Amino acid sequence: MALIMMRSVATTRRGFFKLKRSYSGIRAFSSLLTSPPSKAVVYERHGPPDAVTRVIEMEGVEVKEKDVCVKMMAAPINPSDINRIEGVYPVRPPLPAIGGYEGVGEVLSVGSAVKHLSPGDWVIPSPPSSGTWQTYIVKEESVWHKISKDSPIEYAATITVNPLTALRMLQDFVTLNSGDCIVQNGATSIVGQCIIQLARHRGIHSINIIRDRVGSDEAKEMLKRLGADEVFTESQLEVKNIKGLLTNLPEPALGFNCVGGNSASLVLKFLRHGGTMVTYGGMSKKPITTSTSSFIFKDLSLRGFWLQKLMNSDKVNECRNSIDHLLCLAREGKLKYEMELVSFGDFHTALDKALGKLGSQPKQVLKF
Amino acid sequence: MALIMMRSVATTRRGFFKLKRSYSGIRAFSSLLTSPPSKAVVYERHGPPDAVTRVIEMEGVEVKEKDVCVKMMAAPINPSDINRIEGVYPVRPPLPAIGGYEGVGEVLSVGSAVKHLSPGDWVIPSPPSSGTWQTYIVKEESVWHKISKDSPIEYAATITVNPLTALRMLQDFVTLNSGDCIVQNGATSIVGQCIIQLARHRGIHSINIIRDRVGSDEAKEMLKRLGADEVFTESQLEVKNIKGLLTNLPEPALGFNCVGGNSASLVLKFLRHGGTMVTYGGMSKKPITTSTSSFIFKDLSLRGFWLQKLMNSDKVNECRNSIDHLLCLAREGKLKYEMELVSFGDFHTALDKALGKLGSQPKQVLKF
Repeated sequence: MALIMMRSVATTRRGFFKLKRSYSGIRAFSSLLTSPPSKAVVYERHGPPDAVTRVIEMEGVEVKEKDVCVKMMAAPINPSDINRIEGVYPVRPPLPAIGGYEGVGEVLSVGSAVKHLSPGDWVIPSPPSSGTWQTYIVKEESVWHKISKDSPIEYAATITVNPLTALRMLQDFVTLNSGDCIVQNGATSIVGQCIIQLARHRGIHSINIIRDRVGSDEAKEMLKRLGADEVFTESQLEVKNIKGLLTNLPEPALGFNCVGGNSASLVLKFLRHGGTMVTYGGMSKKPITTSTSSFIFKDLSLRGFWLQKLMNSDKVNECRNSIDHLLCLAREGKLKYEMELVSFGDFHTALDKALGKLGSQPKQVLKF
Repeated sequence: MALIMMRSVATTRRGFFKLKRSYSGIRAFSSLLTSPPSKAVVYERHGPPDAVTRVIEMEGVEVKEKDVCVKMMAAPINPSDINRIEGVYPVRPPLPAIGGYEGVGEVLSVGSAVKHLSPGDWVIPSPPSSGTWQTYIVKEESVWHKISKDSPIEYAATITVNPLTALRMLQDFVTLNSGDCIVQNGATSIVGQCIIQLARHRGIHSINIIRDRVGSDEAKEMLKRLGADEVFTESQLEVKNIKGLLTNLPEPALGFNCVGGNSASLVLKFLRHGGTMVTYGGMSKKPITTSTSSFIFKDLSLRGFWLQKLMNSDKVNECRNSIDHLLCLAREGKLKYEMELVSFGDFHTALDKALGKLGSQPKQVLKF
């Protein structure tokens, strides 16, 4: 699992790479601008991430006139990264592939036609794209979004996948005003924590559902410190009149589900007439079951959210503005979540933690 | 179960009635305009409709200045009427109550302040309201919608609950254009038959799912004669690639579910990315189960439709225009479904048929 020199693998580092017999083709253009050699986490087949990933060294590639070469600073290990490697994510890069999907880096060099970025700028790939687990990335200027250099790098590296999901889900489905209320399950997830804080920032109350487990009292306290109005374990909600538990909160018009099964049903029970539940994950691996009367007589709507689809739409610039807003909140300490920065050299330890092999751990963020 | 003279029951026939000791109060105003005595199907408690309903005779009531007295001509026995009597419908008239919810009648007399209706006009209650199973109804002018007198009475009596549901569901959720496609289960229901015809009238294709049962081949033929493009029994859809069954049809953007359970899942499988399924019934009494990935990666939306809510909204006039359009189609033979006109004197036979006690029967429409 240690660093392996892969002399048999050459790469374009544009999201995929291929086996080559020699480097004569690349070396022939030695007068061109090229990136430094890069270390990258690669996988050539789908499977258990700890079995199929390797850290390899790759040759530098040409930095074409519209390209920007970025020295990566940090990139997280997200659950969806793991699902991509496992081969269970519906959209996957072709194999062999480099892991990772979001991150932050510093511009090292730019092609002659690059207009808006300069060496030293901090950038994130936006929309995010595969291959952030490597030390140098060469991609066209249009891929990169320049961010403020006073952003904490662990937040800059992780601002897209989870906080942007939270922000957009709060604004894209139901018009909420100050004093309104939302309900969510999986509230201890990073998205869940972001929802609590972003809602509170807008004066919106939150009802939060968490699993019954050792440490649930501490989890409740943690979420309340972030601004949660109510936090219930699932077993606390085994009551006939679930809405009787709400004392001073209005019935929520919007709910978020990242668990499925009974936990999704609890979100539906809290929703008011005409409410909407947005599903963005399925941690229990159980489906969502809804009664006919919930649709007809309670007029509930069930929807889904997928950041990858949103960011490949015409909303890229809107999303970049949202990211700037989120980084601003992070700088001001109004958006926070626990992370652990881990040296890239310890990738496989970080991966084991991300896989849950070492118990509950904070979000792992690779530092290059 | 036969006609019973209920001398102990007086009524205002304004959707409810109460026990009275004498009629002296009513008779004291004999100089006022009053309605003729009325025969009505009443129930004083919820329960099996064949056990709790009785046909009674009621005194005439005052026709006030804004009131219209309507001699009912026809009214259907719909499944929701049965559910109201059983007490399982979420919105029910207070007890004791008169059965029925839609119908058609002829204006017999009008109060002095009535402006737009005259004796001889044909009218339907719109929005529909409880108490159409009686020979004379007195309600304010605003309740009544005047219709063309060349409407077939069985269609005029039944145009609201089922055809209007079909029409609004086809237009209120997804913008469909000629050449598009919808999918539905419970296709042999009256709503299902209306959807096929209304869709075809707009150049929209339909994929139809029916139960496996004796006579399913005949049902397929009947639906195809109405304009169905494809009709499948549920067992025919037990294939790996359900969309492989569609040869020349586009993937449907809109689906309708009135069954639930596996049949609802089949509708979801047919839907295209970003499609919407509207639930308007639950004949199997089974819930709707949806995978997490259907919401996130297939971007499906699940909604519900309830005519009663729509017609109590600000859309009453829009719905009246839709009703006129539907009656026009019915007159032209472009909207048809099987019905049996039954004399009001045979109410309990018609009820037994509507309850399914005599096998599969056409929609029962009481003729007064």
